[in-house]
Amino acid sequence: MSSPRKVSDSTVRRLSFYLRILKEIRGRGVQTVSSAKLAESTRVTSAQVRKDLSAFGNFGVRGRGYDVAELQDHILRILGLDRTWRTIVVGAGRLGSALTSSEDFSRQRFSIVSLFDNDAAKIGRRVGDAEVRPIEDLERFVQAEDIQIGIITTPAKYAQEAADRLARAGIRGILNFAPTRLEVADPVRLRNVNLAVELEGLTFAIADVAGDSA
Amino acid sequence: MSSPRKVSDSTVRRLSFYLRILKEIRGRGVQTVSSAKLAESTRVTSAQVRKDLSAFGNFGVRGRGYDVAELQDHILRILGLDRTWRTIVVGAGRLGSALTSSEDFSRQRFSIVSLFDNDAAKIGRRVGDAEVRPIEDLERFVQAEDIQIGIITTPAKYAQEAADRLARAGIRGILNFAPTRLEVADPVRLRNVNLAVELEGLTFAIADVAGDSA
Repeated sequence: MSSPRKVSDSTVRRLSFYLRILKEIRGRGVQTVSSAKLAESTRVTSAQVRKDLSAFGNFGVRGRGYDVAELQDHILRILGLDRTWRTIVVGAGRLGSALTSSEDFSRQRFSIVSLFDNDAAKIGRRVGDAEVRPIEDLERFVQAEDIQIGIITTPAKYAQEAADRLARAGIRGILNFAPTRLEVADPVRLRNVNLAVELEGLTFAIADVAGDSA
Repeated sequence: MSSPRKVSDSTVRRLSFYLRILKEIRGRGVQTVSSAKLAESTRVTSAQVRKDLSAFGNFGVRGRGYDVAELQDHILRILGLDRTWRTIVVGAGRLGSALTSSEDFSRQRFSIVSLFDNDAAKIGRRVGDAEVRPIEDLERFVQAEDIQIGIITTPAKYAQEAADRLARAGIRGILNFAPTRLEVADPVRLRNVNLAVELEGLTFAIADVAGDSA
């Protein structure tokens, strides 16, 4: 891989959106696409599209645009989506179960192979093909089953312990949904999703509208 | 409200994080905080903190820092969190139920008062204090109950219909979790959360690490 290290989070996010457009237009049998078309579908400028893509190599032919299949495969590789990621969920509550049964995840080649919980009442339950296992088995399972990603959906107070267990077991990346700040050491990569923050982005926009009309 | 219109999504996101730090240090009885301290906790520069906050008015006293309580109240107002937002969830599956029962949401004054679904088997079920109602009742309910926010957690194929119903009913903002692009007209504000895109941000980072060591 030759991905440059300094790529902003927004760029990576846009690559994910380009990928969705490419998949959709490839499904319709379209073979080439312009940066203008990609821009239109993702609400950025075509200059931004060209800049994002040129950061990862020189594809696209001036005046002809990008080869859809080639560009899709390339972005899949950049995002690490050219392989299946073996994933576990820690916290077998409603959110953990929702993610485990997400069709969108499995389409993107995230295979959630098991859930872990500290609640004896949940152990042994199945969510789709995945079984809920006791939290004490996590380290052994991660190593035996070659798990690369852990998703934390525990209550905030259990999240650091979950992260510590995942790190000790040798996991490579953690996606944290618990509303708390976690500490993890290199080389483990941590990404946080805070659903209340997403709602706050919306209320900011609405409150602003209200102000305009007042 | 005097919130300026052109505020980037990243700025709004940082305000949410400053708010969490302020709440935590206020809880510990701390009365003033420096931009350096806020910066340290949120991994941005202190210049960025000052810039973010100065966009909304002139608070903070040179050499003394910010009054914690005052700044917290101010950010709450900016983010529209100085009131309770009456919210409904469309799609009473696992994700919808997880959000409805989220403690983090209720702490932030999002009150999810009902869920809606098109599956007869789910109608009448309760998730915490909220009842699942038939999708056909949505418009009437939104108007009668003064609902301002709708959260869409339906499968992708039902999401546009859900958004149309919400818009017709006069909702002010939509948070969409369905993995599809929705069309909504002004003045309805739309914000999308794509959980697979969050995972792709993580695999990008991991794939990158793998490349370094290859």
